[in-house]
Amino acid sequence: MRLLTASIALALSFSAHAVEGMWQPHQLQALANDIEAKGLALDPKKIGDLNAHPLNAIVGLGFCTASFVSPMGLVVTNHHCAYGAIQYNSKPERNLLKDGFLAKKIGEDLPGEPTLRVFVTQSINDVSAKIRTGLPEGETVGRKRFDAIDERQKKLVKDCEKGGGFRCDVYVFHGGASYFLVKQMEIRDVRLVYAPAEAIGKFGGDTDNWIWPRHTGDFSFLRAYVGPDGKPADFSPANVPYQPKSYLKTSASGVSDGDFVMIAGYPGRTNRYRLAEEVNDAINFTYPTQIKRLQEVLGVIGTASKDRPDAALKYAASIASLNNGLKNFEGNRDGFQKFDAVKLKADEEQTILAWAAKNQPKGVQAYADLKALLDKARAVRERDQILNYMNNSGLFTTARLIYRANIERAKPDAMREYGFQTRDDIRLEGSLRQLDKRWDKIVDRQILDYVFSNYLKLPSAQRLPVLDQWLGVQGDSNAMTAKLDALFSGTTLGDLETRLKLFKAGSAAIEKSTDPALQMAVALMPMILELENTVKTRAGLETQLRPVWMDTRIAFAASQGKTLYADANNSLRVTYGNVMGYSPKDGVQMQPFTYLNGIVEKHTGTGEFDATKKQIDAIKAERFGPYAVNSPTGKSIPVNFLSDLDITGGNSGSPTLNSRGELVGLAFDGNYEAISSGWVFNPKLTRTIHVDSRYMLWLMDEVDGADNLLKEMKIVQ
Amino acid sequence: MRLLTASIALALSFSAHAVEGMWQPHQLQALANDIEAKGLALDPKKIGDLNAHPLNAIVGLGFCTASFVSPMGLVVTNHHCAYGAIQYNSKPERNLLKDGFLAKKIGEDLPGEPTLRVFVTQSINDVSAKIRTGLPEGETVGRKRFDAIDERQKKLVKDCEKGGGFRCDVYVFHGGASYFLVKQMEIRDVRLVYAPAEAIGKFGGDTDNWIWPRHTGDFSFLRAYVGPDGKPADFSPANVPYQPKSYLKTSASGVSDGDFVMIAGYPGRTNRYRLAEEVNDAINFTYPTQIKRLQEVLGVIGTASKDRPDAALKYAASIASLNNGLKNFEGNRDGFQKFDAVKLKADEEQTILAWAAKNQPKGVQAYADLKALLDKARAVRERDQILNYMNNSGLFTTARLIYRANIERAKPDAMREYGFQTRDDIRLEGSLRQLDKRWDKIVDRQILDYVFSNYLKLPSAQRLPVLDQWLGVQGDSNAMTAKLDALFSGTTLGDLETRLKLFKAGSAAIEKSTDPALQMAVALMPMILELENTVKTRAGLETQLRPVWMDTRIAFAASQGKTLYADANNSLRVTYGNVMGYSPKDGVQMQPFTYLNGIVEKHTGTGEFDATKKQIDAIKAERFGPYAVNSPTGKSIPVNFLSDLDITGGNSGSPTLNSRGELVGLAFDGNYEAISSGWVFNPKLTRTIHVDSRYMLWLMDEVDGADNLLKEMKIVQ
Repeated sequence: MRLLTASIALALSFSAHAVEGMWQPHQLQALANDIEAKGLALDPKKIGDLNAHPLNAIVGLGFCTASFVSPMGLVVTNHHCAYGAIQYNSKPERNLLKDGFLAKKIGEDLPGEPTLRVFVTQSINDVSAKIRTGLPEGETVGRKRFDAIDERQKKLVKDCEKGGGFRCDVYVFHGGASYFLVKQMEIRDVRLVYAPAEAIGKFGGDTDNWIWPRHTGDFSFLRAYVGPDGKPADFSPANVPYQPKSYLKTSASGVSDGDFVMIAGYPGRTNRYRLAEEVNDAINFTYPTQIKRLQEVLGVIGTASKDRPDAALKYAASIASLNNGLKNFEGNRDGFQKFDAVKLKADEEQTILAWAAKNQPKGVQAYADLKALLDKARAVRERDQILNYMNNSGLFTTARLIYRANIERAKPDAMREYGFQTRDDIRLEGSLRQLDKRWDKIVDRQILDYVFSNYLKLPSAQRLPVLDQWLGVQGDSNAMTAKLDALFSGTTLGDLETRLKLFKAGSAAIEKSTDPALQMAVALMPMILELENTVKTRAGLETQLRPVWMDTRIAFAASQGKTLYADANNSLRVTYGNVMGYSPKDGVQMQPFTYLNGIVEKHTGTGEFDATKKQIDAIKAERFGPYAVNSPTGKSIPVNFLSDLDITGGNSGSPTLNSRGELVGLAFDGNYEAISSGWVFNPKLTRTIHVDSRYMLWLMDEVDGADNLLKEMKIVQ
Repeated sequence: MRLLTASIALALSFSAHAVEGMWQPHQLQALANDIEAKGLALDPKKIGDLNAHPLNAIVGLGFCTASFVSPMGLVVTNHHCAYGAIQYNSKPERNLLKDGFLAKKIGEDLPGEPTLRVFVTQSINDVSAKIRTGLPEGETVGRKRFDAIDERQKKLVKDCEKGGGFRCDVYVFHGGASYFLVKQMEIRDVRLVYAPAEAIGKFGGDTDNWIWPRHTGDFSFLRAYVGPDGKPADFSPANVPYQPKSYLKTSASGVSDGDFVMIAGYPGRTNRYRLAEEVNDAINFTYPTQIKRLQEVLGVIGTASKDRPDAALKYAASIASLNNGLKNFEGNRDGFQKFDAVKLKADEEQTILAWAAKNQPKGVQAYADLKALLDKARAVRERDQILNYMNNSGLFTTARLIYRANIERAKPDAMREYGFQTRDDIRLEGSLRQLDKRWDKIVDRQILDYVFSNYLKLPSAQRLPVLDQWLGVQGDSNAMTAKLDALFSGTTLGDLETRLKLFKAGSAAIEKSTDPALQMAVALMPMILELENTVKTRAGLETQLRPVWMDTRIAFAASQGKTLYADANNSLRVTYGNVMGYSPKDGVQMQPFTYLNGIVEKHTGTGEFDATKKQIDAIKAERFGPYAVNSPTGKSIPVNFLSDLDITGGNSGSPTLNSRGELVGLAFDGNYEAISSGWVFNPKLTRTIHVDSRYMLWLMDEVDGADNLLKEMKIVQ
């Protein structure tokens, strides 16, 4: 995006060597020269081949990325991606999170949580024509168009998944400019093989989250099992390790400052092509208001669970998640203070619009129509924001889930709402089961009280009659209080058996129920569906506009000799660049590597910085094995390193490959300054944080004695 | 101190290139080879000559260091050293602090505050023999010995100052191992010539104090005037600029990373040769307890002045000073957490004791006796600490000053207590005058309440009968409250005329006074003098022990082929080394230079980071004149830089000289990690912060239009 340089001269002065870009594999051919210039030693025209090494060694976990590193289905990913599997196998008397785990033999590995999957991509096909051709057009067809696209997607998925053993998904690119159908083998017997102690795998905890310098051993090993016939199967002792088509060699010599690195993985979501006014909304509405709301909700939960350790424990995960969101929003806010992102986007749009006026006039119209559409959504954004916090009430979400699942179940599977199809039942039941561990009546009541109290402060234009009626509000909030009293004293949804029975009771039974929580769900469902309809209608209309605008942007880029990558959408992407530090501010240089001595520096012996004695002893005794390099303070082993790769959430666990396609680390985080790169990529400040393969190998070798795995893997110099 | 390396292996691994050392000029000859190796281009044997360039261009201000930079008495020092002169000339309608000041011609400069002085060193003579020979010896002669040394010092000073125009002082080295008589010309007509706006000279304020990266233009210009006869004179329009024997050339090309730099100046105090147990006291008693007390006292002042802007203003300077002390103590605390300083010192002592046992046995005895003496002082340290906070009460210190000044004035001048001699009258009267601006009854009462409330919590063994009797305490604190009520409702010392009259009223008049504050001073004086006697007696005894121990250390160092420098004591010292960044922790590198763009980064437009528009405009327009260099972000001008020089408070304003003895900057601060270097110098972390001569010249040239000064100075490439 060199065209931006002029308009941001002093503020950013983007480097000419920006490596912004999360590339679809098929786009890599066009970038071959650049990839080679950055240092790739392999044939750059071949690395985009899904069915060849290294791409066919890279897999998805659904929420993270991973890769095969042995011929026997051994998979490496982040410790925080294997966290569920470790937690699932932990018991008070055998705390694997705290102590770590190592299966010394194949077969001693432990089954992961029931929902754990390894997805091996089989094919990626462009289905844009099948979806975009012949859709309803016009200003009033929003919902109809949305449903048509939805139906076509579901049909493609259904056809693709025929025969079983595969998971298929349609991914939307550029807001609907193109659609790709992805077929993945779904391996559902995935086991825990090796996890270092949490004091290594989560060293630095939340304090170091998004922070450089970093010293986290964020890696773990899983193993994919299939039936004796080589096909995906449910867990069984008879299952055998999956033999992948290829696997990554692991480098014991790692990378150095400036070396080529690349990553393939599943980035979740970015907003790089949003309009200037959408960026403005984010900066001036979403982030400041959400930061305030999150702080308030955290305060509500904290106060309501004060001096009740049992309740506090139940909300520990929610609090961690809300705090994580808060830190993300604060990072966005702080990042946007460094430059005028809105002006930058607006200038960029003007350049494209000027070009489009001559070359692609329908882009100019789509841009104007899109702005008009966005204006409408803005009218009720305060209400939409506050009501969204109802999702933090376990009682509300449970009642809604039960009722909605029953409504949807009455339809043919393909017609059901996304997330309520037969294939979702395991996940839905899981969340009904989990409520016991994550729900406290007093806290939950205070959350709903917070939501409704703030809802009642909204101007009448934003109020919803259905909700007002249910609340029974007549000018004051006493009715609301009475409603909440009745709701929490009367509900029986606290009982697991009740919940599971209701889940499949049929919608008529729910509608007849006297449980006040179910009555709430029934009463509010028309409103919920109407709000959903509004969103879908708007989305349907957007698919007439945003793809046209994005087609224009793609054409403009092409006119400049450039390829445009799409915003992240959980689909497979490749990013390449180099090992590189950064300067967060004048006078300070973040070095590209951290070393073992930094662990000793941070080690306090308590809390998040409590390294294991075994590790500290090994460092102090300088038992470095063959992995040591020259560090600024003498011989040591690199722990984490930085690169200028373009990743985001979902890339966690992605293998970091060197110029020969060997594993030199795993991506596991970005730096704090990178957070706002979800909107505007700043090549001077955006860095990916990797755990170094030498640190992984050293821990396996010197600290945890994982010789069996080292033998199984292919270690190269 | 390379001998320490083994014992601290992992903790510090001191560099072999440590440049620890605040050298007396006469010691530089012995270091010639090392100075040359570091990069000095001048004859290293000549730079210690007081009467030659560059040392004879360097002057003292009493509390800071400065240097002549023109043949017309132009003096450059830090902005914070000229602060008094700027403040003295500021009026609400002409705020020089805020706007800065520039005299465009000689004669347009403004007289500094009446106590401002420029001291030009004439001679430094070793008077150790004169003081140490024939002193009383023995365990019971402490006070007698103290007084004898005091008397000899005062006699030497009196003889030296004969004829007028000179200030003489005896400086004590190594706790009394040697004494040097320093004779300085005392120039007392010192005027303000040029100060940049506070937004430049104090950019970053307290937030950036002791912090790197730094962007402060901490420099100002004064001019020394003498009578038409060339001798020091009181301010008079007839006075003429002083023509120094030499002056520094100012470099427009500055220094680069790794370049040789040296500093001459007046460092105030270090504790590098304290015993391990004194370090232990500092770490485990002094710093933690003082941090707590300072926080409490700051809380007391804050609460007592809350919602009273007038009172808050009166205590603004006190609060700044207490906060500065607090940050220093916290810096020491934090610094000591990085290594085991007590063990390091203890190991060092054991090495020396082992050597001394064979070579200098009296050192072993002195060491043991010194430890025993220190043990005694420890018994009442809680009391001494809390009573010291009485000095924060303006009423108490004023009453004590008035009474003590009258007591001392009855003695011959040479016999008076240090600080109460005739030459101190101007300063004492000044502080009596200042009380109006710095005193609020309510705050002052709360401070004394805090002190006495905590005193009353002490065990009886630490209590003082005189103080108990005055407080009228009988088991509870009601009497104390009544006493404070009477004190603050009855005193007349709030009136300036009253204070000034009482200052010279004679002690009999004070003793007859009915003013409760004076009655307090009279009642407590026997206690004050007794506490003073205890301190002096111990100090006298120490002069029998510490010099012997230090003689032993000097002899031990000599046996290793090394020269020992003495702890800082406000006397002239030279330190040399190189421009150098540092790594505060694994993964982070502090760069040795900051640049103009860092000012734009930090600029918020408010508070401590509110750069002037003129400066921001010049930076954005890249009007760099001839001073630009290549920075990491393109052409820019260095603002501040780091070196590994060994300085401390009192060195502020010291000229930084390059290998040719040219002015390349001014020292004005140390980094946070350097604070604990007052006790143990850590060459990896201790850095001096300098303002760069190129930044100074650029501001004068492009921003403030000080062409007249640039013309007067000798600028070299």
